[in-house]
Amino acid sequence: MGRFPTVQLKLPDWIDTSVPHGGVVLHSVEARMEFVIRLARRNVAEGTGGPFAAAIFLRDSGELLAPGVNCVVPAMCSVAHAEMVAIMVAQQIAKTFDLGGEGLSACELVTSTEPCAMCLGAIPWSGVRRLVCGARREDAERHGFDEGERAASWVTGLTRRGIDVVQDVRREEAADVLRAYQESGGLAYNGRLGARTEKP
Amino acid sequence: MGRFPTVQLKLPDWIDTSVPHGGVVLHSVEARMEFVIRLARRNVAEGTGGPFAAAIFLRDSGELLAPGVNCVVPAMCSVAHAEMVAIMVAQQIAKTFDLGGEGLSACELVTSTEPCAMCLGAIPWSGVRRLVCGARREDAERHGFDEGERAASWVTGLTRRGIDVVQDVRREEAADVLRAYQESGGLAYNGRLGARTEKP
Repeated sequence: MGRFPTVQLKLPDWIDTSVPHGGVVLHSVEARMEFVIRLARRNVAEGTGGPFAAAIFLRDSGELLAPGVNCVVPAMCSVAHAEMVAIMVAQQIAKTFDLGGEGLSACELVTSTEPCAMCLGAIPWSGVRRLVCGARREDAERHGFDEGERAASWVTGLTRRGIDVVQDVRREEAADVLRAYQESGGLAYNGRLGARTEKP
Repeated sequence: MGRFPTVQLKLPDWIDTSVPHGGVVLHSVEARMEFVIRLARRNVAEGTGGPFAAAIFLRDSGELLAPGVNCVVPAMCSVAHAEMVAIMVAQQIAKTFDLGGEGLSACELVTSTEPCAMCLGAIPWSGVRRLVCGARREDAERHGFDEGERAASWVTGLTRRGIDVVQDVRREEAADVLRAYQESGGLAYNGRLGARTEKP
């Protein structure tokens, strides 16, 4: 056995019951977003992480490849944002570090809130061909979350790399998850970390 | 058992023999960088990943908390850059998602090459208080690697969040690992992914 621990990221148990046994096939981006928003709400209700969810779908067929939810606190892992979890689980399923590799159907990442700087940086390396976003950065910030330093031209940056971006899909419903979380007194740990140095 | 796989990130077996049993304590950033550069070289020699390594040290005492190496290909995980692995392993050891939390000694991230956009975005969420870099972005790009879209003012961005940045520590030795990797015909998968859309 090694001296350094193996990092293990496991989706919460309730995820299995959220995904019907025959799998999930959703044809519109609105339906895919609705699925992801439901995961975000459930993640808060179950106490298994922050109010963020994501999923990797096959872009053309609409088949769900992998869901992801924020599990930073339970996994003791600041990297475990919903998008990162969805990407990592999908790559384990596809058995490749490149979801855009030859022989694979084009994948898309659907996320309940626009990616933070880390998740945005991860997208080109993941191999996904399309990003679909619900709530905007401004929604996240209004509800106490810190999205980090993203280039103002991030949409153009992804597009130039061959990754299409679709914004504002069910934006209000998606933002409502953040609002409800804040109103319930949920911990916005990113915001706290970002502001740490301003405290005495 | 869940229907979706648990993501597991394990450091290569040879890491254990690289770290003396009593642990590692290195007082200067140069010595810490030398340690990290050695890991990067070894990672290539052992065939366990790309030419990148990192480590989390306790900033003031110089004690090694966790090493990290790039294991994207063997782990089938595009997220598994050296910095991300070091952060995640360190958080498992410290049993917290926040290496800057109360009661913990200040941590620093030492990386053989300046962080790409993803790893840069991950740094504020990790809780580290200092970033120490070897090779520059230009060195990585000259040797075929793609660092992604980072804000030009990324050093200022981190500093504003209370994270000090030290650049060019043993830069030439660190860049030499990238040069040797490229000359040996090593796969620069980030570069390939970034350039994918320009291919026919």
